[in-house]
Amino acid sequence: MSSGSQAPKGLEGIVATTSSICFIDGAAGVLAYRGVDINELAVKSNFEEVCYLLWYERFPKASELAQLSADLAAERRLPSAVNDLLRLVPSSSKPMDVLRTAVSMLGLYDPDAIKGDHDANVRKAIRLTSQMALIVANFDRIRKGKELVEPNPSLSHAGNFLLVLNGEKPSETATKTLDLALILHADHELNASTFAARVTAATLSDMHAAITSAIGALKGPLHGGANEDVMRLLLEIAKSGEDPVEKIKGMLAEKKKVPGMGHRVYKVLDPRAVHLAKMSESLSKTTGDSKWYDWSNRIQAFVKQEKNLNANVDFYSASTYHMLGLDIDLFTPIFALSRIAGWAAHVIEQLDDNRLIRPRADYTGPVHPAPYPEMATR
Amino acid sequence: MSSGSQAPKGLEGIVATTSSICFIDGAAGVLAYRGVDINELAVKSNFEEVCYLLWYERFPKASELAQLSADLAAERRLPSAVNDLLRLVPSSSKPMDVLRTAVSMLGLYDPDAIKGDHDANVRKAIRLTSQMALIVANFDRIRKGKELVEPNPSLSHAGNFLLVLNGEKPSETATKTLDLALILHADHELNASTFAARVTAATLSDMHAAITSAIGALKGPLHGGANEDVMRLLLEIAKSGEDPVEKIKGMLAEKKKVPGMGHRVYKVLDPRAVHLAKMSESLSKTTGDSKWYDWSNRIQAFVKQEKNLNANVDFYSASTYHMLGLDIDLFTPIFALSRIAGWAAHVIEQLDDNRLIRPRADYTGPVHPAPYPEMATR
Repeated sequence: MSSGSQAPKGLEGIVATTSSICFIDGAAGVLAYRGVDINELAVKSNFEEVCYLLWYERFPKASELAQLSADLAAERRLPSAVNDLLRLVPSSSKPMDVLRTAVSMLGLYDPDAIKGDHDANVRKAIRLTSQMALIVANFDRIRKGKELVEPNPSLSHAGNFLLVLNGEKPSETATKTLDLALILHADHELNASTFAARVTAATLSDMHAAITSAIGALKGPLHGGANEDVMRLLLEIAKSGEDPVEKIKGMLAEKKKVPGMGHRVYKVLDPRAVHLAKMSESLSKTTGDSKWYDWSNRIQAFVKQEKNLNANVDFYSASTYHMLGLDIDLFTPIFALSRIAGWAAHVIEQLDDNRLIRPRADYTGPVHPAPYPEMATR
Repeated sequence: MSSGSQAPKGLEGIVATTSSICFIDGAAGVLAYRGVDINELAVKSNFEEVCYLLWYERFPKASELAQLSADLAAERRLPSAVNDLLRLVPSSSKPMDVLRTAVSMLGLYDPDAIKGDHDANVRKAIRLTSQMALIVANFDRIRKGKELVEPNPSLSHAGNFLLVLNGEKPSETATKTLDLALILHADHELNASTFAARVTAATLSDMHAAITSAIGALKGPLHGGANEDVMRLLLEIAKSGEDPVEKIKGMLAEKKKVPGMGHRVYKVLDPRAVHLAKMSESLSKTTGDSKWYDWSNRIQAFVKQEKNLNANVDFYSASTYHMLGLDIDLFTPIFALSRIAGWAAHVIEQLDDNRLIRPRADYTGPVHPAPYPEMATR
């Protein structure tokens, strides 16, 4: 029996809320934050400015941008107990699981923990953005037996992350590449992790609970986890020496999903993939090793031809991050380091005009009242 | 502009999935697990059997019930690092936040962590059910400076929880009362925390991520957090000496929400509230202090008369748990110790026939393409 209005599986095409954060035209391949096209932002903006745009609903004046950058830099520190957690967990732990656990734990220490008003939520957004980058970097150093690195308040968010991760001041190319990746991943409307964050926040739970839910959802291979799967595929091809197109042909014959291809919303090329492909191409020239980019291109063309699927945001980010020297299992955490900007904006928007998100299920089980069987009769 | 089919705010009345787990008739006040009425289960069943019914879709034979009980008892242990976490966090931490963090951390140690098949998910359900009870009890003892208590495999889930919480074998009344509360809270279709779990799982993330999301959502005062708010209200009344009805009159005049009243789905009395009211009444006779039950009744009658709202599951669970001697901030965690049964059943059901849950938003922001303003013009 139905207990309400039946929606397509996975809520496909169902408008679950209004939102002024992100505009997507899936048919035209358009993505915009607060109305501003991602192609403009990719060329002209930076991650800190995008955070401002997402959280404050407008572009900052120079002084406001400087202030937010300073606020972010000031929050580059973790409670010592959270660093203790990073040391306590097995070094074989998946960074996404560690990030989820540590962000949940951060909620115990946040000075605004019990406050749920708009301004407190913005402060938590700033704090979480800086702290999450430290969690990812610190855990990576701890698992490799390295000393933690002191953050540098004069560096940008992207630059500082690379510093505390690698222990050396990053090149301008690396910083710029990561900054662009952070811009491109910062928001994407009601994707699954953002929706998980809004469902969690809508019970009037708190920002840390909502972001913890989002990180848990992002991990899945049908979502952010795909960028790691793309790189594993490329490495497998490199190891086996197989031709990339032959490999994909085999996967398609076995009805296997090719990671990084196709998107629930985009029916044309994901505009983010365009920029990431350019980054991948440019890095392949810098590193002198063009195979990751070339193979990505050949795979993309073949899957397009065979299945009419386009590359999504995860596809070219894989080769890009790999050429930046980042470990594969940091790819999805780095997605989270960007998407926290959008998650927080969505939680703030949800709580500014809240209603509990509580759909119904269409019951398909035994008809009520089914009998309670006595034990002897079972 | 709209990018799909517009749903009511909070997805009210929208059928987001099929499910054979829980039948609710909100107009008639009916709740049933796998078709079996909650009124039958409340009288004839126990929590272990309800877990079996939810996870295996049928009632267990005697030997199967004994096996599940033994399996649950065998999982009454935590990785030592998780107990270390409970000692590491401030003793002032909210138990719900600690539970969320510790469950997320459990994912790092689960022997089935990387397995997402049906049987692995059932094993994780069993493990999490037992481990979550230990997390709540152990943290409560640690924050009070008490030694941890060894679990007793011969006790039921409810009995063992009270043992490891209080350090002494519980009375039959206390065990039976808690067991009934666990039966009543075990599932409730697509409530917000269960929906958060399904949204998380549907990216093909894992059981621990999904349950972590659910715990984060349950905490909110529009969801499980309400039972704590009810008790705080009753204690406030006791402290001030005000008449309960006068207190509520004042709250309604100030347009304040009375916790534990009204429900998104039930338009008549929540069937669980009936059983919890009986438990509250019975305990008030045992303890010789009838005020919590009496006040609850008077508040319920007044809110019904003034606002036509009925008590929900949280309303009488407050006085019941209080008379069992449980700390207020354990009320919502105890809700979680029951609801894990339903959360896990829903995650298993979701993953058995999965599709990414990814709705759309109706964009209400600046029209695309909004200009990127040069800094000097801002």
